[in-house]
Amino acid sequence: MAHVHAVILAGGSGTRFWPASRRHLPKQLLPLAGDADESLIAATVRRIEPLVPPERVWISTGASLVSATAAALPQVPQAHMLAEPVARNTAPCIGWASATIARADPDAVVAVLPADHFIGDEPAFRRVLQQALRTAEDGWLTTVGIVPTRPETGYGYIEVGEPVTEGVHKAVRFVEKPSRERAESFIAGGRHLWNAGMFFFRARAMRDAIAEHLPALGSGLDRIDEAAARGDEARVLGEVFPTLPSISIDHGVMEKARRIAVVAGAFGWNDVGSWQVTWEMSDRDANGNALPAGTVAIDARNNLVKALGDDSPPKRWALVGVSDLVVVETDDAVLIIPRERAQDVRAVVDALAARGEVDKL
Amino acid sequence: MAHVHAVILAGGSGTRFWPASRRHLPKQLLPLAGDADESLIAATVRRIEPLVPPERVWISTGASLVSATAAALPQVPQAHMLAEPVARNTAPCIGWASATIARADPDAVVAVLPADHFIGDEPAFRRVLQQALRTAEDGWLTTVGIVPTRPETGYGYIEVGEPVTEGVHKAVRFVEKPSRERAESFIAGGRHLWNAGMFFFRARAMRDAIAEHLPALGSGLDRIDEAAARGDEARVLGEVFPTLPSISIDHGVMEKARRIAVVAGAFGWNDVGSWQVTWEMSDRDANGNALPAGTVAIDARNNLVKALGDDSPPKRWALVGVSDLVVVETDDAVLIIPRERAQDVRAVVDALAARGEVDKL
Repeated sequence: MAHVHAVILAGGSGTRFWPASRRHLPKQLLPLAGDADESLIAATVRRIEPLVPPERVWISTGASLVSATAAALPQVPQAHMLAEPVARNTAPCIGWASATIARADPDAVVAVLPADHFIGDEPAFRRVLQQALRTAEDGWLTTVGIVPTRPETGYGYIEVGEPVTEGVHKAVRFVEKPSRERAESFIAGGRHLWNAGMFFFRARAMRDAIAEHLPALGSGLDRIDEAAARGDEARVLGEVFPTLPSISIDHGVMEKARRIAVVAGAFGWNDVGSWQVTWEMSDRDANGNALPAGTVAIDARNNLVKALGDDSPPKRWALVGVSDLVVVETDDAVLIIPRERAQDVRAVVDALAARGEVDKL
Repeated sequence: MAHVHAVILAGGSGTRFWPASRRHLPKQLLPLAGDADESLIAATVRRIEPLVPPERVWISTGASLVSATAAALPQVPQAHMLAEPVARNTAPCIGWASATIARADPDAVVAVLPADHFIGDEPAFRRVLQQALRTAEDGWLTTVGIVPTRPETGYGYIEVGEPVTEGVHKAVRFVEKPSRERAESFIAGGRHLWNAGMFFFRARAMRDAIAEHLPALGSGLDRIDEAAARGDEARVLGEVFPTLPSISIDHGVMEKARRIAVVAGAFGWNDVGSWQVTWEMSDRDANGNALPAGTVAIDARNNLVKALGDDSPPKRWALVGVSDLVVVETDDAVLIIPRERAQDVRAVVDALAARGEVDKL
């Protein structure tokens, strides 16, 4: 098999995990899945290590996040931190990463993985990845679709077509976030999977597909390649990248290309979308609480307390007579919100932004 | 008029304001009344200053609290910190303070005031105090009774008898915390006042009453006086004090003595008994919240957040969709409890004590 490289997409700056997440400390740098101290991105790199050693891992991120991201991943070579000058959605990001990998390893097979997801069954996940990588090695632009467990309207879907090989199908169509009725029909029909933003391809195949379907991006990547050949990549990247079309790889390439495959996976996938999800994934006590060690809990049920400050020793928490709360403490902020309103954290961030409290964003 | 001295009773170590209050940081050292940064004891000394200058203020406290108490009251002479070797209830405490004052100022009139109460109408309070002090100067053991506003079962009551002078009556009886029915009959009858633990007397008159009604205490105070005369007070105090009868001044003296007077007062008195009371006394926003400056509050009502940690700048708080909560943060602990359960803070302290977490008590 050709060498497998992984590109970890680590650009986002979510607001749903305020006050833990910030512009300069997005979700993937936080230990939000369950009780481990491991950040989501560190878990992402660790769980693929049997398939992709850290020296073949590349991190696509924003310039302002490079140092924090590198600090979270000491095992990944510093030169593999690909800092986008500006965010231009996933097609330029994946295109540039593929071009960079292809220069180092022309036959490389590339796995593109989001940095901020949780995987419950890691061996099962790796088995699905192996199948996707074999399919990619055969020249298919491949994705992994998650077997849906509910008619979720917050995700995109992939419609499954005729079989390619055992467990692998052609992908017929990428569907945007559907209406409730449509999502229910997808579940009933059994031919749709959740699009989890994972892509697998030969670096060369992706370059060819980009050249065909996104020619402006293709020629921009050519300019970057030429500059790299003469040792001038950084300057040209800063010039060219902002001019690249801002479009997703799904829209720009996957929906248009031929030979698109999908591997169905069921491995406890979770996109860690809110504090509610963090509570669901946490180890909880007999009363449903996920609390810092040593908390005094009296008549308290189904609460999540995340103490993320630097207090040493840690603060002693005490909860009496409260239920279904999310409490998040950092060194500079505290959030208290009912679990069922966890999505409304965004309103707090909006209020802080409206006040111009940039240091709290 | 004879010189007036004040004895501030500052011994207690309440548990009702955990985590703000601790064994070594009791309620009176905290800014619990409303929004001021002023500790309850500093407010107690400040509001009597027109009647009793700081150089005639004496502080009765425990040995472990002397340094924190002195730090809170820089204007009070260090030599006026009366550190009890052990806590023996109020009769030995007031007896020793009276004896000490009498040595310095034999004709002194003494006002004994709790350190940890709140007074809403300070001019009215001082007018009542002046009347009580005049009555005390005439030789009466005098107390101030608070005009009750509800059939409270958590306080002692004083039954009012025949008038002595304008606004001053004989005190017929001191009543322990009553049953609900009895408290209601007190309110209906109009002859009972709340016992707020304030006492006024000539130092000499109190010594005489102690000698008569608590002879063991009287002779103990004689030994301390004799030791003081030969410059050996500290050693003898440590010997004698633990042997003194542990009894309240109410039981030991006031209930037994003749010439006991009471002055009725209505000046917004509050014993600051729980976080619920702190909320009631706080300035609140249009939604009934008492929150740190800058808090983002969305659909949040009738909450109290007390941020007492040393964070600099202070933490930004955000409350979304929560009501009627008390939240108290210190540098080493956080409490979350519904306002209506504020009395149950004690259960947290009990749990910590049972675990042996002495640093959190």
